[in-house]
Amino acid sequence: MNLQTQWIVGFVDGEGCFHVAINKNSEMSCGYQVLPEFTVTQHQKDVKILYALKDHFGCGVVRVNHGDRYCYRVRKFSHLKEIIVPFFENHKLLTLKRVEFEKFRRVLLMCEQKQHLTVDGIQKIREIQHTMNRKHHTQPENQQKI
Amino acid sequence: MNLQTQWIVGFVDGEGCFHVAINKNSEMSCGYQVLPEFTVTQHQKDVKILYALKDHFGCGVVRVNHGDRYCYRVRKFSHLKEIIVPFFENHKLLTLKRVEFEKFRRVLLMCEQKQHLTVDGIQKIREIQHTMNRKHHTQPENQQKI
Repeated sequence: MNLQTQWIVGFVDGEGCFHVAINKNSEMSCGYQVLPEFTVTQHQKDVKILYALKDHFGCGVVRVNHGDRYCYRVRKFSHLKEIIVPFFENHKLLTLKRVEFEKFRRVLLMCEQKQHLTVDGIQKIREIQHTMNRKHHTQPENQQKI
Repeated sequence: MNLQTQWIVGFVDGEGCFHVAINKNSEMSCGYQVLPEFTVTQHQKDVKILYALKDHFGCGVVRVNHGDRYCYRVRKFSHLKEIIVPFFENHKLLTLKRVEFEKFRRVLLMCEQKQHLTVDGIQKIREIQHTMNRKHHTQPENQQKI
């Protein structure tokens, strides 16, 4: 199945999620790990759409989300930075999800600048995170781990 | 805001609903009224997207759905038949919502043939309706009136 660019933008405006988790991780110098991820969730019956997104972007995985829901998920930093972010820079989201995307991009940039390895940087990322995906949006399960 | 065709298809694949209600109505010869409707629901913060859909299609209304959610809604038979249905015939939905659309189109055709004015026709429409929008999909409020 070939997906058209604007179809993807419309579908992500509806179903996509730009999410930043901050998990405790004693192996990190500041005690926390920043995990940005891009997800699109669908019922199992439409899982082929998620594989079509995976094919289109050439990165990410399709996984069970919870119950009979699946998600397409990109977590690898280089894939987010080099594939996902440029796509949505070039093809603007029309809903306020665009604001979420811009915060997400800012966090990625901070990580690229190694700010996520400092206590001060983690605090700044947490402040951005707290303004993201506020209500009216299904959170990925790992939100609960934060 | 100008919406691109494929953006609309992708957004409706995510957020749209093709719905058929059958309400008791003593003014109808068979005692029931068939109410097909196309809706797209969004949180109030993105209500401008719903107005952009209204502008694009040149028909329908934007109304409160429930709480802080709004919907773009087309109920007028001629608008469904002449604007909404041809749009999705020409620009195919990619998710299984396409199957819902095809059932919806079949009900509209039956109504055009006046089958909804007979007890037998209502029964056939009810059988189609029962296979539509089954779980995993938010129902419009008037579903409860059936």
